[in-house]
Amino acid sequence: MFNLFSLKGGLNNVEGFFCDGVNVGLKKAPANDGDVAFIRSDVPCDITARFTSNKFQAAPIKHYQEYPKDFQTNFILMNAKNANAMTGEKGVEDIHALFKELEKHHPVQNPVMSSTGVIGYRLNQEKIASAFSKFDYNAKNSERAARSIMTTDQFKKELAFKIELDDGSSFNIAAICKGAGMINPAMATMLCFVTTDADIPKADMEELLSEATEGSFNRISVDGDTSTNDTIMLLANKVSGSYNKEAFREALNKITFELAMMILKDGEGATKLVAFEVKGAKNDEEARTASIALSNSLLVKTALFGEDPNWGRIASTIGASGINCDDSTLTIHYDNLLIYSNEQRELDKEREEKAYIIMKNASFKVTCDLGLGEGSYTSYGCDLSYDYVKINAEYRT
Amino acid sequence: MFNLFSLKGGLNNVEGFFCDGVNVGLKKAPANDGDVAFIRSDVPCDITARFTSNKFQAAPIKHYQEYPKDFQTNFILMNAKNANAMTGEKGVEDIHALFKELEKHHPVQNPVMSSTGVIGYRLNQEKIASAFSKFDYNAKNSERAARSIMTTDQFKKELAFKIELDDGSSFNIAAICKGAGMINPAMATMLCFVTTDADIPKADMEELLSEATEGSFNRISVDGDTSTNDTIMLLANKVSGSYNKEAFREALNKITFELAMMILKDGEGATKLVAFEVKGAKNDEEARTASIALSNSLLVKTALFGEDPNWGRIASTIGASGINCDDSTLTIHYDNLLIYSNEQRELDKEREEKAYIIMKNASFKVTCDLGLGEGSYTSYGCDLSYDYVKINAEYRT
Repeated sequence: MFNLFSLKGGLNNVEGFFCDGVNVGLKKAPANDGDVAFIRSDVPCDITARFTSNKFQAAPIKHYQEYPKDFQTNFILMNAKNANAMTGEKGVEDIHALFKELEKHHPVQNPVMSSTGVIGYRLNQEKIASAFSKFDYNAKNSERAARSIMTTDQFKKELAFKIELDDGSSFNIAAICKGAGMINPAMATMLCFVTTDADIPKADMEELLSEATEGSFNRISVDGDTSTNDTIMLLANKVSGSYNKEAFREALNKITFELAMMILKDGEGATKLVAFEVKGAKNDEEARTASIALSNSLLVKTALFGEDPNWGRIASTIGASGINCDDSTLTIHYDNLLIYSNEQRELDKEREEKAYIIMKNASFKVTCDLGLGEGSYTSYGCDLSYDYVKINAEYRT
Repeated sequence: MFNLFSLKGGLNNVEGFFCDGVNVGLKKAPANDGDVAFIRSDVPCDITARFTSNKFQAAPIKHYQEYPKDFQTNFILMNAKNANAMTGEKGVEDIHALFKELEKHHPVQNPVMSSTGVIGYRLNQEKIASAFSKFDYNAKNSERAARSIMTTDQFKKELAFKIELDDGSSFNIAAICKGAGMINPAMATMLCFVTTDADIPKADMEELLSEATEGSFNRISVDGDTSTNDTIMLLANKVSGSYNKEAFREALNKITFELAMMILKDGEGATKLVAFEVKGAKNDEEARTASIALSNSLLVKTALFGEDPNWGRIASTIGASGINCDDSTLTIHYDNLLIYSNEQRELDKEREEKAYIIMKNASFKVTCDLGLGEGSYTSYGCDLSYDYVKINAEYRT
């Protein structure tokens, strides 16, 4: 057994890690936010990463993949406003040049870069390199780092937990994260950096990061688009000497799930967070197909925004998803309210009124029981509002 | 060889067919549009239909499928405002009851029904049956019929062609159609009724309707949702005694393609129509996957609305679609303007200005050449505006 405590702040809670962010003019004045940031460790860290499924992976991802398997690093450089994607070989060369410049200011070992922003433009070397003399390399300024990777995000995303084991030892895990749009279950347009001082074996890092990603970032949808830069990295410097696999699993699952929910709450133009639970499917894969179809459907999303208990769009989306389904065994609930069943197909006034009340909540659950088997899956989505259109029609301006 | 002439109006141009529409109060006053309509033929017609791929097919589709293969009909009844979908066995029983009532007013043989509107409510028998004494069964009022099936449509959709063959004989083909939202390449939320007096064999009706549907309604996307009611029907009364397969193929392909483009132009909240041509793909299937991903992407659609030549979203969507692609062989054009190639990755001011001008057009073409093979496919989409959200958030109110 173990105890898990929530801590204030983010990366600052993990021993041996330092971070800071500065503004070098990539984000327009009068932005107070930084646009270039780093996370570094006193000692070399094991690192595990998961990247976007997009075939056009951005230059920082290609650069990462140049390192041998099981390399260690002590430095992550991050920037906003430019994704360094679709920039070809030049995009990777620019990263090498930046790190050559960085070495003049601070010793680094196998440094890693991570970028977010507009696709199709090369990095401004001069501006980004100007950060290297501005950074406080001994700062533990998690908030500045978290704010520096924000793009359309409305709020910073950082979390930290302390895990106390029965043997009296303890370790910490913390993360910062960005993401608000271009969010799809096949990983979101997001960057997430998790640090820990747990004495975790590399094999466990691989296994548990995959599991945590599948249970969190791979289940959320703002708009069904998958970016070129999606990245989650786990860095372990092992300095606490403490570790327990089940405790770490729970902490990592919790930190990634909560960050994923923060991304959804910050979904571009989103006003509501909705869980789409599909159960009673023929198998888990079919439940997943239907659940993700629901969290991606424009008609479902606009009905959520309109607070319209139009369950027909839920049913139609399940029917269109191509899975096995039968309208005589299907039931639909909003939270605990039965909205549709074979016996009660039309929504009477009383249930419609109750549905309105549920839909006015900032979050609720839609449960679709197909009544055909044991398969289940839950994904998480948000509504689609005028502001989504505004944000994305005007993104580059 | 043959000549194809465009005719004014719609179904009124085809010999032996009659149609009308009336308002029985399903559409709220002061709507001038009808809400119940019919198409009938003096003589029994061969009929071919294609229906939605949605697993929850609406009651009128189930009712149609009760007839034996190769049945003939002389009457189609249509209504708006209620899809008669997810209504179970009662939904089909309601159709039988309506046709029993209709027989008291007009002789019918194997009548067919087609409905569009909200999902999940039973038809109002009394109101719909009240149309039977209001219809002018000898009218050729195509416009009234076309307007009676409109839901969120902004304009009526009807077309007609006359085909003159070299032997001096001729036949006509005409159609009415509805659709504006819930439009997906796997058939749109649409109803389309095509009539002809061509002396076409039943086997050709089947073959040519499949081909025409694949080349038209299966290639358009407003929002990626597939409804429970999508229907296209072809009725042939053969009274002209004239027929030529190639001429009929061209006329049917043309009438369905032009109606599909009318649906897109009327796409809920749409301001632009965009063709997404993908070529140079490894095969046609991969080209289709990428093309449809483009016409469905929210980020592409909002960039179109914002008239933002943000080709990064085009590239990212192709990369996310899972097909084989390589950013060093990819080129992207807007009409004839090269927007992206391996040699010209960043958009300079001059080309950006030219791109703005193209994007201000009401329609243009995005061509993505993957440079990998011979596969090609074109689908058609529209932009996503504030009005799409407004229309769909407030649909039932």
